[in-house]
This record gives sequence, C-alpha cells and structure tokens, in this order.
Amino acid sequence: MSNNADNIIINRAETTKIDSVDFENLTFGNIFTDHMLICDYKQGVWEKPIIKPYEPFLIDPSAKVFHYGQAIFEGMKAYKDDHDDVWLFRPDENYKRFNKSAARLAMPEVPEDVFIEGMKKLIEIDEKWVKTGMGNSLYIRPFMIATGPGVIAAPAQFYRFMIILSPAKSYYSGEVKVIIAEHYSRAANGGIGAAKAAGNYSAQFYPTKLANDLGFQQIIWTDDATHTKLEEAGTMNVFFRINDTLYTAPTSERILDGVTRKSLLDIAKRENINVEVRPVLVEELIKAAENGTLQEIFGSGTAAVVNPIVGFSYQDKYYELPKQENSVALQLKQKLNDIQYKIAEDTFGWTVKI
Amino acid sequence: MSNNADNIIINRAETTKIDSVDFENLTFGNIFTDHMLICDYKQGVWEKPIIKPYEPFLIDPSAKVFHYGQAIFEGMKAYKDDHDDVWLFRPDENYKRFNKSAARLAMPEVPEDVFIEGMKKLIEIDEKWVKTGMGNSLYIRPFMIATGPGVIAAPAQFYRFMIILSPAKSYYSGEVKVIIAEHYSRAANGGIGAAKAAGNYSAQFYPTKLANDLGFQQIIWTDDATHTKLEEAGTMNVFFRINDTLYTAPTSERILDGVTRKSLLDIAKRENINVEVRPVLVEELIKAAENGTLQEIFGSGTAAVVNPIVGFSYQDKYYELPKQENSVALQLKQKLNDIQYKIAEDTFGWTVKI
Ligand SMILES: Cc1ncc(COP(=O)(O)O)c(C=O)c1O
Ligand SMILES: Cc1ncc(COP(=O)(O)O)c(C=O)c1O
Repeated sequence: MSNNADNIIINRAETTKIDSVDFENLTFGNIFTDHMLICDYKQGVWEKPIIKPYEPFLIDPSAKVFHYGQAIFEGMKAYKDDHDDVWLFRPDENYKRFNKSAARLAMPEVPEDVFIEGMKKLIEIDEKWVKTGMGNSLYIRPFMIATGPGVIAAPAQFYRFMIILSPAKSYYSGEVKVIIAEHYSRAANGGIGAAKAAGNYSAQFYPTKLANDLGFQQIIWTDDATHTKLEEAGTMNVFFRINDTLYTAPTSERILDGVTRKSLLDIAKRENINVEVRPVLVEELIKAAENGTLQEIFGSGTAAVVNPIVGFSYQDKYYELPKQENSVALQLKQKLNDIQYKIAEDTFGWTVKI
Repeated sequence: MSNNADNIIINRAETTKIDSVDFENLTFGNIFTDHMLICDYKQGVWEKPIIKPYEPFLIDPSAKVFHYGQAIFEGMKAYKDDHDDVWLFRPDENYKRFNKSAARLAMPEVPEDVFIEGMKKLIEIDEKWVKTGMGNSLYIRPFMIATGPGVIAAPAQFYRFMIILSPAKSYYSGEVKVIIAEHYSRAANGGIGAAKAAGNYSAQFYPTKLANDLGFQQIIWTDDATHTKLEEAGTMNVFFRINDTLYTAPTSERILDGVTRKSLLDIAKRENINVEVRPVLVEELIKAAENGTLQEIFGSGTAAVVNPIVGFSYQDKYYELPKQENSVALQLKQKLNDIQYKIAEDTFGWTVKI
C-alpha cells in the first residue's frame, strides 16, 4: 500500500473560529471546523494530501461535477468519551462504501491511508471541536468531485477528494410523519441507488417539498416499478415493527447499505429481538396498521441514529402509530449510542480510537 | 417581466485566446471562448448578470452541488451563415426545458431575459469564435448549480446560473455500435430522467465503460422495470427504421424531450416519411433485424445532430445493420442542417438571429 498519509502537508490556520460558535444551538451541517483535507487525483495518481484552513477553493466552470454530477460522499461521526478520547464508529465500513460508490460512478478509488489516516489526522488537529456529552458529535463529510474540465459527457481525468467536519448536536427533527411514495421514486433498477452519489439526493428534493407542503417531513420510497415494496427514506433506512418482529428491506441496487441499519440488526440479534430482513410490502403495512399489529416505524442513519416515525399517509389516508412506552426504536438507539460514546462495552469491535 | 439583461455588467477580457486555437482540430467541449456569463441567485432574487473573462471561480466546499447534485444544464448551438450572421436554433425550447429541469430539481426558475438575452449578448461579444462552414458551430452550455452551503440534504438557498461557450466542429465519432441495456438503467419511473439533471449522466459512465471495453461506443437504455422497451442513448434520442417507417419512443418521465428529436419528427412529416411515435420493443427490433426489415438505427441530439448506428448487440449476439445508399438518417440530418445554417428556407420559424 502506498502511504500518502505519512506525507500529509499541514498548513495550520492562524486563528480559530471556535470561540464564535454557539455549541448549544447548532443546526445540522452549517458550521465547519477550522481545517479541511484536500487530496487531488491527476493523470492516474493521487497527490499528497493537504490539511489547510477551511475556505472556498477555485474550480473551472466546465468541471464535470457541475455538468454530469460525478460526485460521491460519505457521512460518519466522531464521538468524545468522558476521558476526552475521540472515537470513530466503523470507519472501515464507510471507507468500503465510498470506494463502492466511486466504482459505480466511474471515479478512482481513494487509498485507505488518505481516507482513514487523513481523517484521523484532520480530526486530531480540530479535536477541540468534538464536545463530550451524549448527543454531541463531530459530523465527518468525506467527498469526491470530478474537477476535470470539459463538457463532453464522459468521466473526468481529474478528481478532488476532500474531508470537511461539522460539529453536531443530538438530532431532533420534531415529530416525523411520512408519506409512502406512490408516484415519485429515488432509484432505478440497475441505477445508482446503492451508491452515495450526489445525484440521488437532488432527485428527492422536489417530491419531498410536495410532501412538506402537506405537513409530512419525509417520504418512504417504494420500488419504482410497482410501488408495492417499502424501501428507504431520504437519508435513512427504515424498520417496521409488527407485533414483536422488526422488519427491514434487504439492501439492493436501489437501497443504500446503511452502517446504522446493519449495526442495529446486529444489536437486535444480540438482544434476542426477532428480526426479519425481507421485502416489506405496502399492503402488509396497511393491513398491520388496520388490525392494530403495527407497533413502530423508524428510520436509521448516521445523522439521527434512530428516528421514530409517528404516522404515515398512503393513498391520502393517514395512519397514526400507537404511542410507545418503551419503544424498540429508542432501546436500540440507546444501545448503539452507548457503544459509540464508550459507555457500554463494544462487544462488536466497532469503535476505533483516534 | 423583470429585465435583468438590460443591466448586464460587462467586464471584457484584455486579451483573446482565439489565436492559440486550432479550429481545424477541435475535440468536442474542451476549448472555451474568452467570456462567460454568471448570474447569482440570493435570498430569492436573481442579481444582475455579469459577462466576464472565462476563468475558475471560488466556491465553498460545502456547496450543495458537490454533495447533493443539485445541478442542471442545457446544450444548444449557434451557427454562422454565409453573410456572417449568427443564428440560434429554437432557443425557446431549451429555455423551457431548462426551467422544467429546474422545477424537478427544486431549483429556482431562471428569467427569460437572463437566459436568452444574456446568451445573445455573450455570443455577440465572442462572435469571432463562431466560424462559417457546414459543421462548424458554437456549442452553448447554460447551466445552474447550487452554490448554497451546508451538508444537510435539502435544497440550497443560493444558486449560480452560468453560460459557457465552446467552438465545435462537425461531430464525427467513428462507427457507432451500441449495446441494448439488459441490466443497467439511466432513469427510474417517477425519477429525474426527463430532466437535464447532472446526476443522470454520471450514472451512465460505469455501464458505458463496460460497453466500451467490449468495443461498443454507446448503450441504448431500456425501461428499468422490464428492460423490454427501447428508450434513448447517453445524450441522444433514438430512431429505428423498419421497412419505410421511422419509430421513436414517446417522451416520458424517463426520457428527455430532445429538441433535435422533435425537429426531425416535424421534418419527417413534412417530407412525407412515415413516422410512428410509440413504445418500441426490444423484441420487435430483434425480429426486424432477423427478418431483414430493420433498415436503420440512429441517435438524435444537439452535439451530433444525427448519429447513424452500424450495429447493436443484445444478449451477447451482434446484429449488423445493412449499409444504406441513401439513408433516411443522413437525409434528415441534411434537411435540419440546411435550416440551421440558413441554406434552406426555415419554414418552421425555428431560427433566431442574434
Ligand atoms: C439514502 C440513504 N439511506 C440510508 C442512509 C443511512 O446510512 P448510514 O446508516 O450509513 O448513515 C443514508 C446515509 O445517511 C442515505 O443517504
Ligand atoms: C439524455 C439525453 N437524451 C437526448 C438528448 C438530445 O436532446 P437535444 O436534441 O435537445 O440535444 C440529450 C441532449 O443532448 C440528452 O442529454
């Protein structure tokens, strides 16, 4: 393996913005730390990574990212424990998924040392931005864009990999109501739904705006061919609890293989919760809602960890979910958070110290 | 209507690059003219457009175009006639399609005067870059990107509309062989296939690379649900001639409403060529290829106008098309080119003088 990270060029900011940040009132993804990592790919070779002050950069108007959406990203978090140690959660999973996305978008793979060691170094430098306390974290956004110029629709020759960091509070988005998609879709069979590709997200903005206008926060996407299978939400996989069994769709070409999803599945198994990973039909959901066996729906993803859903709409009918005293959603969230914040033993070996 | 274009700020380049350009050996989309147009959208308002030297610009690393692919574009051409007048071809169609794409991507609509009058002014300034002679043109690339910052997956608050110009020669891509898609797809039902959205293109790069590796230049996409209907190619709509009838798929949510396609349909009707706009099945194509009634396949799009296809592969079998003495593809191409270059009378009223 090459070792670009040994040679990281570090260009420290002369001042810090940290004192101007109100850490008690952060909204998600708006504030960035003092530094960022940049690593450029030119004529088939990754150059030395640079850590430098966070700031705008110059790019050509014909860069392919602007015209053809050649862009992928990851989302992960760093947590600080009570001894002021900083931990990553399953960074290898994000790294693997990033390069899977890269391959699907015909982009070069990023070397592990640039991604993982570069990230560690960057977080070490901005370590003060990671606050202790349950719910506090540092959101990490690795991404890669096609910087190569030219308006012919073909893969670029030049790319830029970057990591930016944003301090985050516990994500509470209010009561979440969802609409089950009947017409719009996020992913095609044989498409890029399983990649964390930029283009998948903007495709959801307009339908989500229509849902918002009706008083719903999110959409649960269904398969685009038949709209009969429940797939995932905007940036979350989804779980359904009917009686005492948790159901979630298998990952596929259309569904992102969420790290939170797979971690919750492992925790659920360890806790002897019945789990079935299989296609979940809209029909089943409606039947369960009508006969009172539907207990919970929740989303899973890095930003919110677990996001309980209070009700859903399908064919213009609203179905309210029962209030839960001790929801499986929140039980699982706590178990996972306890591992991430090093409160409970990490029996799975998921946490990685920086 | 507002009239931002009256107030275009013009900042001319001090020197021109034109003398360093080899106009005889242009490859598509690599060289840009001396100027570009920029118009920014901030807090719900379009600012004054600026025409300034073509150059890289500064953008925040968290700009939503990089993370969520909120980006759309258009592709059109300007042609110079023998009196040195410069003409646009159906710019209103591109303008309407641009704003349709904008709506689907939850982006603001661009005012007509910024798009059309801004474009005219820009071309006027770089008028020397439009060369006379059949095949020579100026490729025009209007595009809009989300410049607003923040890594939450939601529409941006700030956008940038730009126009860049690239001189082009007649587009000859050699003999084009295509593969009929059996697994990969470019668009979902209820997705963004009908929009000229950046994300649609990068989705095609990897499958196209696989096709290239097998000696094919392009893919003809099929519907993602069943892979039985022939839809369109990378940046072209597709036509099939069986016996003396031309077939092309109706536009839909999954298929771009190509300006060249609709213009060729009108010309074909005027020329009394039989045309049927209806779903074309892979099955029909194979049958026609096997019984010798399949005469031609060609793509239509702004870049190549008409691109004849010499053969196609389906289920690992290669079907060669008969050589044509006087192909309908090339007849239609010439009729259209003659209108564009003002050689034939523009009975449709498609050309607009700058
Ligand atoms: C489309 C989509 N589904 C699901 C998820 C959840 O994945 P993870 O748990 O790895 O954050 C994400 C990422 O945030 C996503 O973008
Ligand atoms: C996907 C796609 N289909 C078809 C076309 C052809 O459209 P037009 O004839 O307007 O150039 C294009 C544009 O170039 C395209 O991007």
